[in-house]
This record gives sequence, C-alpha cells and structure tokens, in this order.
Amino acid sequence: MDPQAYGGPLGEVAAGLPLVDHHVHGALRASVDRPTFESMITEGPRPHSAGTAFDSQVGFAIRRWCAPVLGLEPHARADEYWEHRCALGEEEVNRRLLGAAGTPTYLVETGYLGDAVLTPEEHADVAGAEAREVVRLETVAEQLLASVDSGAAFVAQYPSALADATRSAVGTKSIIAYRAGFDVDPARPGDDDVVRAVERQLRAADGRVRVDDPVLLRYLLWCGVDRALPLQLHSGYGDPDLDLHRANPLLLMPWLRRVEPSGVPVMLLHNYPFHREAGYLAQMFDNVYFDIGLGINYVGSQSPQVIAESLEVAPFTKQLYSSDAWGPSELHFLGALLWRRGVSRVVGQWVQEGEWALHDAERVLRLIGSENARRVYRL
Amino acid sequence: MDPQAYGGPLGEVAAGLPLVDHHVHGALRASVDRPTFESMITEGPRPHSAGTAFDSQVGFAIRRWCAPVLGLEPHARADEYWEHRCALGEEEVNRRLLGAAGTPTYLVETGYLGDAVLTPEEHADVAGAEAREVVRLETVAEQLLASVDSGAAFVAQYPSALADATRSAVGTKSIIAYRAGFDVDPARPGDDDVVRAVERQLRAADGRVRVDDPVLLRYLLWCGVDRALPLQLHSGYGDPDLDLHRANPLLLMPWLRRVEPSGVPVMLLHNYPFHREAGYLAQMFDNVYFDIGLGINYVGSQSPQVIAESLEVAPFTKQLYSSDAWGPSELHFLGALLWRRGVSRVVGQWVQEGEWALHDAERVLRLIGSENARRVYRL
Amino acid sequence: MDPQAYGGPLGEVAAGLPLVDHHVHGALRASVDRPTFESMITEGPRPHSAGTAFDSQVGFAIRRWCAPVLGLEPHARADEYWEHRCALGEEEVNRRLLGAAGTPTYLVETGYLGDAVLTPEEHADVAGAEAREVVRLETVAEQLLASVDSGAAFVAQYPSALADATRSAVGTKSIIAYRAGFDVDPARPGDDDVVRAVERQLRAADGRVRVDDPVLLRYLLWCGVDRALPLQLHSGYGDPDLDLHRANPLLLMPWLRRVEPSGVPVMLLHNYPFHREAGYLAQMFDNVYFDIGLGINYVGSQSPQVIAESLEVAPFTKQLYSSDAWGPSELHFLGALLWRRGVSRVVGQWVQEGEWALHDAERVLRLIGSENARRVYRL
Repeated sequence: MDPQAYGGPLGEVAAGLPLVDHHVHGALRASVDRPTFESMITEGPRPHSAGTAFDSQVGFAIRRWCAPVLGLEPHARADEYWEHRCALGEEEVNRRLLGAAGTPTYLVETGYLGDAVLTPEEHADVAGAEAREVVRLETVAEQLLASVDSGAAFVAQYPSALADATRSAVGTKSIIAYRAGFDVDPARPGDDDVVRAVERQLRAADGRVRVDDPVLLRYLLWCGVDRALPLQLHSGYGDPDLDLHRANPLLLMPWLRRVEPSGVPVMLLHNYPFHREAGYLAQMFDNVYFDIGLGINYVGSQSPQVIAESLEVAPFTKQLYSSDAWGPSELHFLGALLWRRGVSRVVGQWVQEGEWALHDAERVLRLIGSENARRVYRL
Repeated sequence: MDPQAYGGPLGEVAAGLPLVDHHVHGALRASVDRPTFESMITEGPRPHSAGTAFDSQVGFAIRRWCAPVLGLEPHARADEYWEHRCALGEEEVNRRLLGAAGTPTYLVETGYLGDAVLTPEEHADVAGAEAREVVRLETVAEQLLASVDSGAAFVAQYPSALADATRSAVGTKSIIAYRAGFDVDPARPGDDDVVRAVERQLRAADGRVRVDDPVLLRYLLWCGVDRALPLQLHSGYGDPDLDLHRANPLLLMPWLRRVEPSGVPVMLLHNYPFHREAGYLAQMFDNVYFDIGLGINYVGSQSPQVIAESLEVAPFTKQLYSSDAWGPSELHFLGALLWRRGVSRVVGQWVQEGEWALHDAERVLRLIGSENARRVYRL
Repeated sequence: MDPQAYGGPLGEVAAGLPLVDHHVHGALRASVDRPTFESMITEGPRPHSAGTAFDSQVGFAIRRWCAPVLGLEPHARADEYWEHRCALGEEEVNRRLLGAAGTPTYLVETGYLGDAVLTPEEHADVAGAEAREVVRLETVAEQLLASVDSGAAFVAQYPSALADATRSAVGTKSIIAYRAGFDVDPARPGDDDVVRAVERQLRAADGRVRVDDPVLLRYLLWCGVDRALPLQLHSGYGDPDLDLHRANPLLLMPWLRRVEPSGVPVMLLHNYPFHREAGYLAQMFDNVYFDIGLGINYVGSQSPQVIAESLEVAPFTKQLYSSDAWGPSELHFLGALLWRRGVSRVVGQWVQEGEWALHDAERVLRLIGSENARRVYRL
C-alpha cells in the first residue's frame, strides 16, 4: 500500500484492514490489446470514439495509484503506462497489483466471461489470498437448458442442478436487473408458467440460450431464495444492457416484503446512483445488505462523497465492501485503495470534528471492510 | 445547548435561534424496555437482528450529543447510556432533553399512536414551550367510520367532523403517500365514488377501520384543501409501509397544478432521498413548502450534506425546520441540535468564503428556523 | 473577472479560459419592470408571493458577483441593486456583464420568446463575441403549421423547412421533455400517424399552434436526427410545464439505443437533479454528451457540489459548459463565473491532494470549457 494514500486518525487502521471483497471476478488470464483493455476499464460497451478510456476518473486513478505499484511515477502518461504494463506481462501485473490490494478474501462470481479470467483458485494463488465462489443463477440455468429438451425437465432438474453447482459456494447471484428489470411481478411464478417460459426460451435459442424471459428469471430468483445462501442482486449502475431506471432497487420493495420472512440475506450490489435508496432498504428490511461496489472505482476522486452518502440511513452492520473488479487487476487494487482512502477521509473527519469516537469509527471500518461479510457469508 | 456544538460566524445565531418545530409528535409518556426504545430510533419496523439500533448514525449521535445532557461523557457506550437513562426515568429525560432543545414552539401532529406519547399540552408543559395541534385527516376519518353505517352518512358528516377536530388546530396532515402513493388520480373524486369507497372500507373492517382505499384517501386530501389550513404531506423517507418510489414528491405535480389556485399551503415533509425534488417543487409552485425533517436525525454526521442539498433551488422563504420526533425526546433534541449544527457549518462556510453576506446568512437561518413557519401557520 | 473569484492551483487557468457557452439565449433587448425581472431569475412561472426572487441562491449570487461589475459593493441590497441597474440601462448592463463573462463563443438557441431578447448577431456585438445559432425543432414546426392546411403538406415540407432554417446553424434543439415527456414510444412514427397528428394540431389551433402532440413531437425529434447536426435535448430541471419525473434522461435509453448507430451527437441539457443519470448515459452511449447548464446558476453557492457530481462516471470528453441564460445578462455572466469558480475549487482540491496531476486538471477544464464543444459542433 502506498504510504501516502491514507492520512488522518483512521489512516493506519484503514491501511491494515484485511478486506473481504464480497463481490468480485477473476483477474485477467492473459494480456490483451489496448482497445480491449480500454473497454475493460469502462462500463460502456466499448471505448468512446471521442477519446481514450483513460480520460475518465478511473483512468486518472489508474495512472495515479497503479503506476507506482508497477514501478512508474504517479500520474504516468497513459501511453507510458500501457507500454510498461505490456513489458511486465499480465502475470507480473497481477502479482504486483493483487499483492498490494490487502484483500485476503475474495468471493468470486464466476458467471461472466469466465474463460478470459482466472478461476477462483488461480486468482487466490496469484493474490496470496483465499477465494470462495458465488454462483450466478442464470449461468446454471443456461447450462441446464443446453441439456434438456422440455420445460418440465428443466423445472424438475434446476433445483438439484443449483444445489450441485453451489455445493462449495458461499452465495448466489441474480442479474434479473438487466435481463428484465426490477419492476416484474414479485410473486413466485407457478410451475406451469415456468414450463411455458422455458419452452419459449428453448424455441428461441439457436445453440446457446440466453435467459431473458421475465417469468424464468423470476423463477431462478426464487430458487435462489430456496437455496438459502446469501443472494446477490446486481442493482443500479453497471451494464449497458439495462434500463437503469428499471434497476432502481426501490422497485424491489414488493418482492423484498415477500422474501424477508425467509431470512435469506439479499445483497444489493453497486446501486449507484441509487445508493441512498439501497441504504434505505437496508434500514427497512432485516435481511437486506448493500454495497457501493463498482461505483467507487468509476467515480475515482469523487469516491469520498459517494462513500459518505452510503453512510447515511443504513445500520453500519448492513453495508459491505466490494470492488466488483473483472479482468484488469488495476480494478481489484483500486477498489480496495479508493475505499480505504475514501472511508478514512470521510469518517476520519467526523472523528476530528468530535462527531464520532475513534474506537467507534475503527469498529465501523472493520464491520464494513470485513466483519459484516464474515458474519453474513459464514466465512 | 452544548457550547462546543456550533462554531464559525453563525454559531452564536444558530445556538440562540428560537425554533418552530413545524412537524413533530409528543415525547414518550412513560419508560419502555430496550427493544421498544431501539425500535423507536429506527424507521425500520423493528431493531435489526444484525445488531443494535445504536450501530447507526442516529445511535452514534445520541451517544455523542444526548449523553452529556443526561450527565454522561460524550460517546458513552450504548449499555451505559441505556442504564443511566433508565435510572433517570422518562420524566427527567424529557425535562432535560426538551429543555435543551431550544424550541419554544411545537406543532404537534396527534394522529400516530397517541396513547404512548404526551398530549400537546403535556408536551408543552414539560418542554416549557407552546404547542399547537396538527390534525391527521385519516385519523378523523377513522373515528367517523367507527360511528357511521353508510357511505352517504360519511360523506355528509366528514367536512363538519374535520371542522370540529381542527377548531384550534394550525394545520392538517395526510399520509396518502404510504397508504396509496402519490401516483393516484389527482382529481377530486365524485361523491358517488367516495360513497362506494367508504362502503368497501366499512365492509372490510372488523372493528377498527384502517383507511387505505385510494379513492377515500384522495377525498380526504381534497377535504384538507377545502379546510384551508396548511396541509402537511408525508413525502419520501419514513415508513416501512410505503413503496418509497411511489412517495416521490414529483409524482404530485399533476395534483399540485390543481391545488395551487386555492392558495392553500402544501407542506412536503421529510422528502429524503427526494429533497432536491422537493426543493424544485417549492420553486415551481407558489404554495409549496418543504422540510428535510426526519432525514436530519437519521443521517447524523452526514446532515451537513443533506442540509446543503436542501439549500439549492428553493427560495429561502419556502423551507421550514422540523424534527419529526415521535417518542424518545432524544429525537426532539437531536433534530434541533443537528439542524443548528449543520446549517451553521454549511452556511457559515459560504460566509467565510465571501459567497454570502453575514446578515443575509443570519436572516436565512431565522427564516427557515422559525419565521417561515410563523408566517405560513399564522402563529 | 473578479480577481478574488478564483483561487487554488487552477484559478489562473479557470479565469483565462475562453468559454464556449453551447446552450444559451440572447440578452434582454430592453429594460423591464422589477416583477418581470424577478420572474426571469427564477424557473418558476412567476415571483413567489412569499417574498422576492432575490431570496434565493441565484439572487444572492447576483448581489455578490454582479453588483461589483455594475459598480456596487459585493452583497449590495436588492433594492439598491435594482435602482442602480435601472439607472445604468439595459445596454450598459449588457455591455458590462457580457464583457466580463469571458465567453468568446455563444451557441444561441433562438426558439424561446425571441422578440424580448437580442438576436444572435446583436448579442455577439454587445458581448464582443462570436454567436452561432441553434434552431428549435418545434419552432420551425409551428411556423410551418401556420402556413399549411393539411397533415400531408406538413410532412412533405418539414424536412426542407428544417434544412432552410438550419442552413447556417450549428445544432438543433428539442423540447419534447416538457411537451410530452421522455416516456414516449422511442420508434420513429409512421408518416400516416404523423399526418393524423398534424391534422389534430391544426384542428385544435386557433391562430397560433403550440406543438404538443406526442406523435408529432417524436416525428420532429427524428427529423432532428436526420438533419445530423448535434441535437440538444432539454432534460430535467427547467420549466414549470413539465412533469419533472417524466424528464428524467434515463427514460431516453430505449430511444438512445435506436439513435446511437446514426452517430448524431445527442446533447443532454441541464439534467438537474438527474445529472448523475446524465453522466451515466454519457458513459454508456458513444454519441451522448451532457451539461449541468441551468443548474449552476440556480444552486449558486452549492454549485461546487453539483459540479463535483457531474465529474463522476462520464468521460471528460463528454461534458460541456453552458449557462442556459435567457434575458438578464446577469445569468450569462454568473453561469461563467460560477462554473469557473466551482470547477477550479473542486478539481483544484484533487490536485492539492495529489489525486490528479496539474496538467491533467488543466486539460479537463479546457475540454469541458471549450474544446469538447469545438469538436462536437465543428466550430
């Protein structure tokens, strides 16, 4: 960790905190070309014709904070950074950046373009960390759809397929936000409706099935509830597929009322720009937790404000840390650095102004940085 | 008032400001057990299984600011605070905290669980303050529904029942936000429709009627307009019953266009996280006023940012102060302290940076803290 | 420029930046009475009965920053300001305030109450600046509707009427946000539907036609896309006609997916309080740009926060500067002053904290203040 990164009364505690990154993906398996790399440091579908993806908060943050870890001056130019990165090679880049992330525990979601990135085991090896798996409900469904020939067979087999796929997993994940939106019928669909939905998907598929039927997506979500592991829900910011206003977590309220009695933890991921709304849900529902994951990296030097906004109405026992990094290990490192830097600045100021006691502040950092995740995921 | 609480060029003015708390409920009538107390310092339906309600901004603020008023050190531990509070007894706790709130005028809304809290007169006595009443439209309706046997009788009698109930009141209040949402038909419903709605409610009731029919709620709202007192509307944050996205005050625009010609002041309460939207409505409509009430207590050390956001597009003549405290007098005291502290910090900085003249800043504090309320409610 | 206005490491660069105000209207042609002036410094439909329009952020900013340019002390009282302004006369007021705005290039939208304000040529003369025109799609339609007698004639003639009207223009503008909302069918309407819509508008008109048919508005929008100039869209804050929640730019996502392949730049204007949402769209879509225009003036001393929030997820190549001033030249001047002051404070702090390199920060100011506009509008 950069010794200059953290100041104030909480700097030392923040720097030493062993983070649990409760929603993350593997680091890049092999080097890519520059356009591909740039597409990986934006949530947009591709680099912009208006310029380079480095002309953004995350680009500036990479040049500021990752450059020294790779042996360059802070604020190295983008071209220089790129050349140096290529010269080091992906393995060395991963070794350095993951080594500097101070994150001994990763909960790795394996459902997105898994071939391009390290497996949880490989990622753990390079990082010198522990990795546990989070399984995407839709990925298990898509694998099963490739091997069944009827809706009835799917409904008969999905629960056990999910049980098999999650045997050693610590959580499940749903992407209903960007395949259907949160404004769907909150009720568990009847088996007959699911059978028909599966038949529609099977007919529409040529080769690889992409689950996008709202009834089927709702069925998978309820199977996730039945599986009784913490259930991660992509929410808000993060994918060009989604209609962002339909991924507002407030739209989940009718569904959350039905799920709360189960006691299954619902983990709202990212949430930007609806992070205040997510905090509200974490106050209202006993089983709702949230993070601001992805948002931290992409707002860069604005992350202290977003972090401050995440520390409003939610109990401090209901927020978690994640990077949502996928691919370039810059994102794994930066997520940790910017969160530590932002939270120690925001909360450190409250301590300096006499609002919070120092030992309370330190405890809140430990809760959000690791203890809430250890408790909820039973690590 | 804690002499350390307010600094900067506006500290003295903020500390001495005689507040009008324009939306509040009575302090606790008698001591309660700890789980009940904890349920009263969260807007969630109950304390969280994940921990204590003290692990939150409002919990930290109670330990920081209320502890010294009760004779403890700032940041007293939660257990210590609770024991000491029990030893003092509710009457002494109320006497100290209400005595320290610097709020000579309370507009007390009496419609919510009135038996557990002090009446306006009792509250005024303990606080050494004046109290005026605000009457909940739905409570008057529920009382009338218990004594009529037809929809026609209800429609014939409600206006005079409301006139009776508000004879000495300064305002009315509607909770249509969490019984139906703001996305209802904005038109005044026809009498025939109201009669049918009342009949439905009467048939559905077994004993005590809970008004939740959208047509009936709209009728009550329009009767509130007819009564021509300032009409308070719960908006945004504050109750687990509501679908928060349906309590966005922007959804009121079609209704506000119809009400504006009446000149009846519409007071949007709380509004978090839609306080910027409420400020916009206060700029657009001549008769719309707003506060950030409840939000201030629940965001604690983040209240300066929320207060700053409330000082954007609304004219300074259109914002009011409230605590929305109900029950524990910690909330009455904290609402006042955090508002004074936040507004003197935010506006004080503008004065120090040369953006605002000192006398303008002092005037804005007086407008929001008391003068706007005195003018609108004709106190 | 007030030498005290800008401090920090970016103060000098900010003060000297030759701005392109990419969405603005002409300065007042002649003096008006005080109620009219006050109605021009609020976005509400009229001054508030609760007090003067000077009791607001923009009013305080006028007294703070415009008063010295007109020869008064900072924070001059409103009455004193008004008397002095009247004594100087509109021409001298315009000369001084436009002269102090440091804006050599204005892209003037001519579609709103054009008789009361200077033409682009006149405005350029007084300001000592260059002015280019932006043409409102609906204004061209309303002019054509006054001269055709059938829907078929309208559809046959509108594209060429638009081509004529925009011969020397640099952009087009749509106000569909407040005539219909963004939640309309995103598809290009069929000619038959447009013909019927025009017939409806013609029948409804008595004398002057106000285009408000959703089908017709969508047709005009698509004609704007066909015209292939940068297409400005009013979005969010700014007009009492609109239902603000229907002007949330996120609602444009289905339409933006259809327009992106054309490559036509879509310029989202104002956006407050949805400026984070606009930044998200600018990250997601290659052809989407945005500003926080109008919001800066109306939030006054809160503008640094709003500016900071606009510097989150959008690439720095996708944001532009505008004042959206119409009428009083206070608004042209303040837009420039508050933007320079806010951005130099926000970004200057990042430089001081070591987050951004100074030369990167300077480049971002140049991009947003002028270079992005020069590139997109091909100036």
